[in-house]
Amino acid sequence: MDYSADDHLFMQRALRLAEGATRRAAPNPGVGCVLVRDGEIIGEGATLAVGSDHAEIQAIKDCLARGDTPRGATAYVTLEPCSHHGRTPPCAERLIREGIGRVAAAMVDPYHEVSGRGIAMLQAAGIPASAGLMEAEARRIHRGFLSRVERGRPWVTLKAAATLDGKTALLNGRSKWITGPQARLDVQRLRAAHCAILTGSGTVLADDPQLTVRELPVAIQPWRVVLDGDLRTDPAGRVYQGGRSLLANCIDDESRLAPFRERGVEPLIIGRRGGKADLAELLRRLGERGVNELMVEAGAGLNGALLREGLVDEIALYLAPSLAGDAARGLFAWPALEDLADKISLKIVDARMVGQDLRLTLRPANRA
Amino acid sequence: MDYSADDHLFMQRALRLAEGATRRAAPNPGVGCVLVRDGEIIGEGATLAVGSDHAEIQAIKDCLARGDTPRGATAYVTLEPCSHHGRTPPCAERLIREGIGRVAAAMVDPYHEVSGRGIAMLQAAGIPASAGLMEAEARRIHRGFLSRVERGRPWVTLKAAATLDGKTALLNGRSKWITGPQARLDVQRLRAAHCAILTGSGTVLADDPQLTVRELPVAIQPWRVVLDGDLRTDPAGRVYQGGRSLLANCIDDESRLAPFRERGVEPLIIGRRGGKADLAELLRRLGERGVNELMVEAGAGLNGALLREGLVDEIALYLAPSLAGDAARGLFAWPALEDLADKISLKIVDARMVGQDLRLTLRPANRA
Repeated sequence: MDYSADDHLFMQRALRLAEGATRRAAPNPGVGCVLVRDGEIIGEGATLAVGSDHAEIQAIKDCLARGDTPRGATAYVTLEPCSHHGRTPPCAERLIREGIGRVAAAMVDPYHEVSGRGIAMLQAAGIPASAGLMEAEARRIHRGFLSRVERGRPWVTLKAAATLDGKTALLNGRSKWITGPQARLDVQRLRAAHCAILTGSGTVLADDPQLTVRELPVAIQPWRVVLDGDLRTDPAGRVYQGGRSLLANCIDDESRLAPFRERGVEPLIIGRRGGKADLAELLRRLGERGVNELMVEAGAGLNGALLREGLVDEIALYLAPSLAGDAARGLFAWPALEDLADKISLKIVDARMVGQDLRLTLRPANRA
Repeated sequence: MDYSADDHLFMQRALRLAEGATRRAAPNPGVGCVLVRDGEIIGEGATLAVGSDHAEIQAIKDCLARGDTPRGATAYVTLEPCSHHGRTPPCAERLIREGIGRVAAAMVDPYHEVSGRGIAMLQAAGIPASAGLMEAEARRIHRGFLSRVERGRPWVTLKAAATLDGKTALLNGRSKWITGPQARLDVQRLRAAHCAILTGSGTVLADDPQLTVRELPVAIQPWRVVLDGDLRTDPAGRVYQGGRSLLANCIDDESRLAPFRERGVEPLIIGRRGGKADLAELLRRLGERGVNELMVEAGAGLNGALLREGLVDEIALYLAPSLAGDAARGLFAWPALEDLADKISLKIVDARMVGQDLRLTLRPANRA
């Protein structure tokens, strides 16, 4: 199907609305919808929290509130309208009932209960409906939801901060303030955009981090997930206070988990693989719990293992303009490579200054 | 003194000419000169090889060759015209003789035989002459010459290439092709812009490099300086073939130096400090030999020592989009730091993509 310049313009707006809704809507996709008649926007909406109206319904209500009607309008929506009764009635039905004139979706919803049926339902009602307008952009914005639906695990962003020679801490463990205040605020922003933050027992034992969003208002804090296979951490640790903490471990022993449960921490029992907690299972379990976007803030061991297992989709690497020397601690631990071909190949998709520090956005070289 | 927009424009052109002449003119500064009358450039010149005409004389000859005369024109020159009889007669005298109308220099020549006397000589002849137009830019372009005259050592640029986690080679030593072809060509360009390239015995023993400029035409190859305090390297090494090699060592023993001399290698005997070859003395000696710009392409040990001693002025760091893991070899070796305040603080003055790799230009944070 051919789309006009106007079609792109209005979908751009819908995508922008979607971008702002992603975190709030999880585990649903944060969809954006724009209603247009005669080249004018007459209604806008984005998915709200689970159980509330989807983007299309928000846009219809917005249109009605403006004293207009969606009758005959074109609906631009970043994801195919749903066709099933979930927590809310099907959006496709409502669009038909309102007499919408045309529907342009950015992409088909891969969720098994929809998967093209929304478009088909609209077409069956005689409404021109298609998917594919600015699909690449939509896939980027909905990547967390898509990852969970298509791969059964969250989109995983690994955040790391190091000196320019790749050091995260001195040999004696000292590590505070490697990067500057702007980079630290940027990390807060990154946390706020994620459903959950994963760390390892080593980091909890060494740094006793809170892993909460501070300095920024958030409606709801991300889940904090501690991978502590052998239950080495202290239930009094700061990461376990204040709720929304998950303890991923391999020890299914209620007596040892009780002190954590008492603090409201939810255990997540996972199996072992090769003697270590099974990381793929951990991610699968987090996906099942509705985590679309997972951020990793861990030490060299967990970082390295996730990377070697191909479980990282993006790296946000903050490089501070300083050098710590070879004796300091490094970013990613795995056994010594024998061949350069075994190195992990990435591509740099973005590089920019954040205050005095450099922020690189990296992706595995073999993925889009 | 106030300078006009035109003054800046013409000095900009002179600076551009100087930039192209720096390498060729060494150990002299590569100066640029533009002659202007009524807003039109009537002659241009830049310093040629040692013993040939300085920029001012080149510009005068260019003007005369165009059938014009420098009489009454303004001379824009990136460094104060010389006032002394060196290998060539004083340029200030020639400018006076040609009846030049005005001289605007970017900066005073700090060389003890000039040091303001060129400007004074012009003023004494009734010619309006001043220094200071775009001085910061001129200092950047003449930084090699200025470093040698003002600090008694070359401007030192350290080049390093590593993975994004700061690794230069695997534990087993494998290191070829960390960066891509564009970055390697960029390194060739960097070499071509330097008077000499310094490496250490470890690199020579491990990689047997040539350290020549290839893939690019150069009138003259940079000197190759091997720091091999204890004479561990093999005179048959590639770095010692083809002339223009210096062997910096602490063993003043002709019988051991003879095999190097036979290949045309010049020994440079330097003292020890703290049991190691004295790096400050090495740089001083290279300055005495007329090395304005020195490039360092060495291993973690020499790199680290130069950095810790504050002998590096700029770092060209090429980061390849890959990860090698903590077990691989690092960039800069020095004893473990006890306090983060002891890390080396840099600032990022430039960051750009070179092919798939990232090139950072870094300076010590405490210097301009």
